[in-house]
Amino acid sequence: MTDSHALPLKDALRQACRDIEASIDALLPPVPGDESLLIEAMRYAALNGGKRLRGFLVLEIAALFGAPREAALRVAASVEFLHAYSLVHDDLPAMDDDDLRRGQPSTHKKFNEAFAILAGDALQTSAFEVLLEEATSKDPAIRADLALALARASGSAGMVGGQVIDIRGEGKALPLEKVQRLHAMKTGALIRYAAEAGAILAGLKADDPRREAIIRYGTDLGTAFQVADDILDTTASTEELGKTAGKDEDACKSNYVSLLGIEGARKEAQRLSEQARQSLSSFGPQAETLRALADYFVERRN
Amino acid sequence: MTDSHALPLKDALRQACRDIEASIDALLPPVPGDESLLIEAMRYAALNGGKRLRGFLVLEIAALFGAPREAALRVAASVEFLHAYSLVHDDLPAMDDDDLRRGQPSTHKKFNEAFAILAGDALQTSAFEVLLEEATSKDPAIRADLALALARASGSAGMVGGQVIDIRGEGKALPLEKVQRLHAMKTGALIRYAAEAGAILAGLKADDPRREAIIRYGTDLGTAFQVADDILDTTASTEELGKTAGKDEDACKSNYVSLLGIEGARKEAQRLSEQARQSLSSFGPQAETLRALADYFVERRN
Repeated sequence: MTDSHALPLKDALRQACRDIEASIDALLPPVPGDESLLIEAMRYAALNGGKRLRGFLVLEIAALFGAPREAALRVAASVEFLHAYSLVHDDLPAMDDDDLRRGQPSTHKKFNEAFAILAGDALQTSAFEVLLEEATSKDPAIRADLALALARASGSAGMVGGQVIDIRGEGKALPLEKVQRLHAMKTGALIRYAAEAGAILAGLKADDPRREAIIRYGTDLGTAFQVADDILDTTASTEELGKTAGKDEDACKSNYVSLLGIEGARKEAQRLSEQARQSLSSFGPQAETLRALADYFVERRN
Repeated sequence: MTDSHALPLKDALRQACRDIEASIDALLPPVPGDESLLIEAMRYAALNGGKRLRGFLVLEIAALFGAPREAALRVAASVEFLHAYSLVHDDLPAMDDDDLRRGQPSTHKKFNEAFAILAGDALQTSAFEVLLEEATSKDPAIRADLALALARASGSAGMVGGQVIDIRGEGKALPLEKVQRLHAMKTGALIRYAAEAGAILAGLKADDPRREAIIRYGTDLGTAFQVADDILDTTASTEELGKTAGKDEDACKSNYVSLLGIEGARKEAQRLSEQARQSLSSFGPQAETLRALADYFVERRN
């Protein structure tokens, strides 16, 4: 990332964070009555200060193709709901059993396990609900397309499928191609979706070469993200991460660092980031923030 | 239910069960590879011999308004996926902690807790995915409408919200109106959705009086179902139910029987069933199976 882009990207990220949290807050308002505690748990999980990289991707790509920002903020909130649900369930005692999430008690520690299960369930539902409401797009084909793409990215052939492969791989030495497939499903599919969703919202059809370029960009970004995550898991402290560091080693999980070494993993992240940039070559100066984002994905510190 | 309708309804239910299970089987085929165990857990949960009353409602109402049976079977499978997800998560140790479901080990006993959480998650996603695929309807407005109605019936303002009110009401004496609201959300919303979904699939708009009549029918059916469930929980054995009997009393839960007495609850179920029949008065002889179904809902033995 060159210095001239450092500031604009950080400003854009900060602004997006604020706007996306305002969108989440408005789409999931506190309610009175007996179900108030469910909504509280959902808000706790969805408003705990994430980096909103997925939501930011939606916003930037929607803007690149001229979709209205208000609609894009709904789609951004939706992908953050989906992401939040996955984190709440991942942290459960029967899963990763993690008490900390972004430096705060995870949802089942703050509330209890039953509420964490139900809040995650309802956050998944909300992700679909927000996409399917007319305020997202007057065109029902766009709404249905967005929701179908989300289902494919997050279900048994996407995020949840990848989670299962991850669990079954614990304590085993996995070959590189299996680790690649696992992460393409577990974390890559939703990042790729976030990118594609911006293009769908702007009305780009599935066979539009611009949508295809954005999918390639999102795919490389997703892999780069995971390689960087594995590097951070090895090199950063729990304090820096806001979540437990060294988890892969503790769980005897194969990851990009154990397979490629720390230098090999850094080179691979660089290569993916460069390849992501190249997918944007036809978009001109308007895509400069997205190019800087590809660097940010591999250079981040948490 | 008069004798002349007893046989046709039972035959129709049996045929629907077979067809819906074939539809589930086709929409969720076993897969090879590392994620095979997830699909196995999803199939275990979705294909364990339920009565398919929700799916049957979809099929009968779709047929009443002339929607193709093949598409209706997809919508029926979808609502059964959603229902199966809710049962898998309800049975978890942190929730109802139930080892038995329809006389078989519940999903977390057969597999483990992590797989039960993930299989439930992926079944919810599949419910949306199936609705949103083009094979369900060529009209994207119908697909989006079906999926939005499912989200509203099953999320924080519907099924999951009702589940939370139920949990928070344990050990407390709830007034009748709170028990009514709880069940309208927890079990009623999805039964009402199943009825409405058949009408949506057939292309009936939201302001069509026929769709409104079907919603009234589905609403009364949903309440009648819960009243009958409370009666069965008091009067039937665990063996007859295929799930643990007397659970409400054990958990000190207020229900229709504790509030109305067993005779009062039976009368209320009858009243609701009769009212459901009346909503169908404009539909003529074609709706005879749906009328018989209203009786079956309150006379069933498990």
